[in-house]
Amino acid sequence: MTSQAAPLTTGPVKVVGTGLLGTSIALALRALDVPVQLSDTSPSALALARDMGAGEPVDGASPEPALVVVATPPDIAGPVVVELLRRHPDAVVTDVASVKAIIAAEVAEAADDAACARYVGSHPMAGRERSGAAAADADLFAGRPWVIAPTDDADPAAVAAVRGLALDLGGLPVTLPPQEHDDAVAVVSHLPQLAASLVASRLVEAPEAALSLAGQGLRDVTRIAASDSRLWAAILVGNAAPVVAGLRRLREDLDSLIAGLDHAATDGPLAPGAVGALSRVIDAGNVGVARIPGKHGGAPRRYATVQVLIPDEPGELGRLFGEVGELGVNIEDLLLEHSAGAKVGIAHLSVVPAAAAALEDGLTNRGWRVVAE
Amino acid sequence: MTSQAAPLTTGPVKVVGTGLLGTSIALALRALDVPVQLSDTSPSALALARDMGAGEPVDGASPEPALVVVATPPDIAGPVVVELLRRHPDAVVTDVASVKAIIAAEVAEAADDAACARYVGSHPMAGRERSGAAAADADLFAGRPWVIAPTDDADPAAVAAVRGLALDLGGLPVTLPPQEHDDAVAVVSHLPQLAASLVASRLVEAPEAALSLAGQGLRDVTRIAASDSRLWAAILVGNAAPVVAGLRRLREDLDSLIAGLDHAATDGPLAPGAVGALSRVIDAGNVGVARIPGKHGGAPRRYATVQVLIPDEPGELGRLFGEVGELGVNIEDLLLEHSAGAKVGIAHLSVVPAAAAALEDGLTNRGWRVVAE
Repeated sequence: MTSQAAPLTTGPVKVVGTGLLGTSIALALRALDVPVQLSDTSPSALALARDMGAGEPVDGASPEPALVVVATPPDIAGPVVVELLRRHPDAVVTDVASVKAIIAAEVAEAADDAACARYVGSHPMAGRERSGAAAADADLFAGRPWVIAPTDDADPAAVAAVRGLALDLGGLPVTLPPQEHDDAVAVVSHLPQLAASLVASRLVEAPEAALSLAGQGLRDVTRIAASDSRLWAAILVGNAAPVVAGLRRLREDLDSLIAGLDHAATDGPLAPGAVGALSRVIDAGNVGVARIPGKHGGAPRRYATVQVLIPDEPGELGRLFGEVGELGVNIEDLLLEHSAGAKVGIAHLSVVPAAAAALEDGLTNRGWRVVAE
Repeated sequence: MTSQAAPLTTGPVKVVGTGLLGTSIALALRALDVPVQLSDTSPSALALARDMGAGEPVDGASPEPALVVVATPPDIAGPVVVELLRRHPDAVVTDVASVKAIIAAEVAEAADDAACARYVGSHPMAGRERSGAAAADADLFAGRPWVIAPTDDADPAAVAAVRGLALDLGGLPVTLPPQEHDDAVAVVSHLPQLAASLVASRLVEAPEAALSLAGQGLRDVTRIAASDSRLWAAILVGNAAPVVAGLRRLREDLDSLIAGLDHAATDGPLAPGAVGALSRVIDAGNVGVARIPGKHGGAPRRYATVQVLIPDEPGELGRLFGEVGELGVNIEDLLLEHSAGAKVGIAHLSVVPAAAAALEDGLTNRGWRVVAE
């Protein structure tokens, strides 16, 4: 959350690119009374950001910035960083693009050593379902990881300045070298994104009756497939090598599944190799998913789940939570499930295992229908 | 939800296989005062189901059943159905395995026409994270789709009997021929299951730092990868042809992604064909995910999302819901998101678009931190 203490960033800060991220950063800095200069190739985008209170457009009278934030589309961030390192010889320059090695390479190629030392890339991992200054929000970064990706040549003071920016805006700084960042997001973000699209693509030709059987599993797997294809294509081509390496390993597993299921389709379910191929992939998936950190970054933790039927009437969910509170139980996580055609939903309440039995009893006594997992 | 009126099923019902599904069905029928006979090859599983109140073990004095429910593991359901059609020449026989065509084919092959007319397969689409009689629950089927999959040869009275069972247990009957059922679950259940495992498998070798960047997208895509590999391998080999056909189409798209990204990895992000290949798959995913029915089986509906920071303290979620209720707003859907390392969560509240602005203002006035999407 945004710090209430004096900001680490004193400015002036120049924000280049007044889309969602640039304008959100500028608004958050203005809320901390940091002077912000705005720049955008689109005069109307620039005017919108200014009118939202994100800062003042750069002009001849603007003082030299101490920090420059490049928030252009990812495919032009590299040349823009290089140009700004030249134009502002005393400023720290960062960018917020979601791939980092390709930009670091462009900077190393085009800028001299002193300039390279002033560049520290970063990647605030904030939601992107909407775009443009109009969707900007000073709280966009609150509680989200913000990767700081310095090269070996970066000046420690420049790294500290970018880290200070992340902290001022409520982000959770994580330091990773550029290539490690790109390898990481290939696995935890880019591959899941493409897998969701690949599964959702199968629904284009599916009959209506098939879609009527859709359950929470399909909804979860495909949710992020509803994403902006222009933005994602730009991100993915900028991180092509790690993503394609991951897709190749995924295809090896896919090939083994296809080979195993081909045996089963031809020679029946007990054909040699079929069950083995499936079990290997599913078992590896069990191991992989167990490695995802749980709440608050700790070790994965098992919660007990209590499932409750919720009639589709206004206020029922609120009533449930009120009564859970009266029972003295804290909800650790929650998922709402709707079946096609049902006038009820199922709330999955995750609680510490020790609280589950009492919660089930308490809710049942109060007339709720607790259902099996 | 379980009907409060007189049950459509009068019994006696014989339940063969006292695992999670069989015992849950038996418990629900006993709650409706329907006589239930239990059978299982494992004496201890049978005794557990009896001790839970699911019915009485079959013995020489048991009357002829009117309905037989085969709830064995899916890989032996076919021969067991055939045997029970022979043993009970006046009974309707159903099974609850999650693939249907292979069982219908085994019955058509091994039983005479009169017996075939008495068989109607079904598939209650209930959760399976746990297994065994100990996890059984009479409410397992409440509000969930229950597919009735008659062959062309099925007697309408037999179809009505199985449909009555589904309704008695609170399920939502959906009638589909066996092969259409199998094709449907291949797309909406089996492919997403395998895709989740394929993505989660990539996490096995990922460095800890990569996992610390995991967000809600990865969690959603991989949630169902935490599944029982023995059960899933049996389901998938029983539906091998439709699943492998879907995996092949998925591999074609995957190959086009790999080819496009290979160009980008070799010749840079603007290499011919790279962006086009990615956009095609992502655009198709947009179209596919938009076809998933929304709440209550209606057309997909756009809700506005209001995101609120939730401090990690007991009762905060309950307090939020209470205040949302006081503001007169109904929550249509809800998702709780936790970032690694954050002592706060973000609640994504879905509401009808007309209510969003007032909800944001109301919550902000009451001191909640409303954050950008």
